[in-house]
Amino acid sequence: MASPALADLGRRAKAASRLLANASTAAKNDALRAAADLLVDRSEDVLAANAVDVERAVDAGTSSAVVDRLRLNPSRVEGMASGLRQVASLPDPVGEVVDGWVRPNGLRIRRVRVPLGVVGIIYENRPNVTSDAAGLCIKSGNAAFLRGSSAAITSNQAVAAVVREGLAKAGLPEDGLVLVEDVSRESAVEFMRLRGLIDCLIPRGGQSLIQAILDNATVPYVIDGDGNCHVYVDADADLDMAVSIIVNAKTQRPSVCNAAESLLVHESVAAEFLPRAAAALDGVELVGDAASIGIVGGSRMQAATEDDFGREFLDLKLSVAVVPSLDAAVEHIARYGSGHTEAIVTRSLIAAQRFVREVDAAAVVVNASTRFTDGEEFGFGAEIGISTQKLHARGPMGLRELTTAKYVVEGEGHIRG
Amino acid sequence: MASPALADLGRRAKAASRLLANASTAAKNDALRAAADLLVDRSEDVLAANAVDVERAVDAGTSSAVVDRLRLNPSRVEGMASGLRQVASLPDPVGEVVDGWVRPNGLRIRRVRVPLGVVGIIYENRPNVTSDAAGLCIKSGNAAFLRGSSAAITSNQAVAAVVREGLAKAGLPEDGLVLVEDVSRESAVEFMRLRGLIDCLIPRGGQSLIQAILDNATVPYVIDGDGNCHVYVDADADLDMAVSIIVNAKTQRPSVCNAAESLLVHESVAAEFLPRAAAALDGVELVGDAASIGIVGGSRMQAATEDDFGREFLDLKLSVAVVPSLDAAVEHIARYGSGHTEAIVTRSLIAAQRFVREVDAAAVVVNASTRFTDGEEFGFGAEIGISTQKLHARGPMGLRELTTAKYVVEGEGHIRG
Repeated sequence: MASPALADLGRRAKAASRLLANASTAAKNDALRAAADLLVDRSEDVLAANAVDVERAVDAGTSSAVVDRLRLNPSRVEGMASGLRQVASLPDPVGEVVDGWVRPNGLRIRRVRVPLGVVGIIYENRPNVTSDAAGLCIKSGNAAFLRGSSAAITSNQAVAAVVREGLAKAGLPEDGLVLVEDVSRESAVEFMRLRGLIDCLIPRGGQSLIQAILDNATVPYVIDGDGNCHVYVDADADLDMAVSIIVNAKTQRPSVCNAAESLLVHESVAAEFLPRAAAALDGVELVGDAASIGIVGGSRMQAATEDDFGREFLDLKLSVAVVPSLDAAVEHIARYGSGHTEAIVTRSLIAAQRFVREVDAAAVVVNASTRFTDGEEFGFGAEIGISTQKLHARGPMGLRELTTAKYVVEGEGHIRG
Repeated sequence: MASPALADLGRRAKAASRLLANASTAAKNDALRAAADLLVDRSEDVLAANAVDVERAVDAGTSSAVVDRLRLNPSRVEGMASGLRQVASLPDPVGEVVDGWVRPNGLRIRRVRVPLGVVGIIYENRPNVTSDAAGLCIKSGNAAFLRGSSAAITSNQAVAAVVREGLAKAGLPEDGLVLVEDVSRESAVEFMRLRGLIDCLIPRGGQSLIQAILDNATVPYVIDGDGNCHVYVDADADLDMAVSIIVNAKTQRPSVCNAAESLLVHESVAAEFLPRAAAALDGVELVGDAASIGIVGGSRMQAATEDDFGREFLDLKLSVAVVPSLDAAVEHIARYGSGHTEAIVTRSLIAAQRFVREVDAAAVVVNASTRFTDGEEFGFGAEIGISTQKLHARGPMGLRELTTAKYVVEGEGHIRG
């Protein structure tokens, strides 16, 4: 059972969501722009609150990488404000008539995009998620019900207060953003079980959070999962292009989910391609199968374990395998892939068509880097995550993925015979 | 942990799903038509198998209503065959390009409809669900992984054997339908936890099944929930139409989820409307609030409890309340509704617009019976259930709701800068 206090927060978010669902686009944009202005005006307050979190983290001996994610500075606060302004400038998905038709009996049916209601988000240290997530939820007519980490609580309180004031300035309910301030481990589990109060939960965190959701959640959720992304270099690949793509996919930002983690090479081009790729991937640790090591040499490439092929390294490390055919590449991806992004480099129409059809992933990419699977790069303006599940949303989640649909049925006294 | 045997069944369904995902529409239609022909040809075998289940149920003292749901006869088998033929005649959703665009950098993106993969279905006694569900799954390119009840196991085995033979005749994998034959309670829980093998679970059953899913499932699921559907008779309603709609919504088939369970009447028309409605609803038990009883009389209407307003009677019983305003009707529905179907009867454009906008349900109906929220009535040809959740599918689920989408991204060597 949820604590009365947590359920009460949920009821406040739910009540606000009913008002936000019918708020005008103009009012929602006003709220986001007011919050952006306030963030800049109150920058010193927000930074002072953040300094409390940072000091506590440093005193606790937290690693410098984690402290860096937690730390705000004037330019990061300005970035949060421009994020809110950018979301304000995006089209509002609410009210879109998705489709509609007339039945033979004259009944008129249309499907209209509406907000989900209350979107719950569990996230880790970055305080910018508080404003980024709230902006996307509010723009799409949802109440944001946010549960950040204990490490960032003071920062999150300061940012949330600003966004709530922005909502009030636009005449919208402050509870369009409700922040959970009890950040105990128990409250995370209670949060996942607020069925009827949270319409969609989006966890942003690692494997232990995902497992906790699978084990405990009773509210609907969308999982933003791992990306064990492959680049397959086909027999008919332009090898210069293939080198450029694997280098970009692996090294441009190795810590993110759309970075490549594994390179598959058709055996007919492996002897020519792999030495060039290994040279271009200077600084990247390579682990491979026997055929790859036979080409590249044991000093450049260690033997890959079974585990290596299934792992999202999120680092300058790449697994490599030589495959005898496109079929074998597709099989390998089916076995080890995580359903995020899979790329082929080829000049063969037939190979591209087969890869696109047979590979099961949120995004299948032909002759481009895996790094393009991203809300910004897809043109959504912003994203709240990248779904690796198949239900509701698959791939980058923008404003549209924060909505559902409602059937509107109009008759003139129609009854069923 | 799932038993090895159950996980093995899941792996067989998964392997078949990869072939079915790329099967042609013609092959899938051939399979369904072959299965339909075989069902009729083997009608005697199917009925003999069913007789075993029926006899066991009768011997166990099962209620006659349950035995009736379990029992097949030649006309019901013919109905199952024509169901398969009808699904064969529907358009194939797979391959539809949902949308597509070109990015400023020239990257071409399109979103293509693809099957979910393995659709798991847990269902109760009706053996026709075995062929109905399999037909919808196969047509949409999915493998059907079915777990019926122990009471219907012999019937289900006979029907499944026929559908599997139909698949084989069309050159498709027999494991496009995998039936779980271990129908112990433990196996149901194991089934819900076959993460990675079931892409979407659709439970078809009552509250205890739904609760078991919420408590145990780790696979993605879509809930086909209760329908506590309201008809609101507005101050500006055509009262003849309102009588006709509430009688149809309540009595045309009271045992189904889109039947009305509650009647709300604006106070300005209650004195005129309620006596007429009570007379027309002859044979329907009425329970109401004090205002309704004051109009209709205590001999025709008992006092409704709080519980009555939240209950899906699925019977000739109706709760009634007089409300002072449209706002109060919307509030009542927000409090007691289950998010299925909510109807207003009105001639007022303003009232209709507000009701449509402010009521949060899968279907909002103006001047028609709630009974129209149905896959057939919406024109989907068939349905696998009616979702009362907001994620993935909301409202009647047809072939389209058994698909997901895949992004296809095409470049000419694009890398991220």
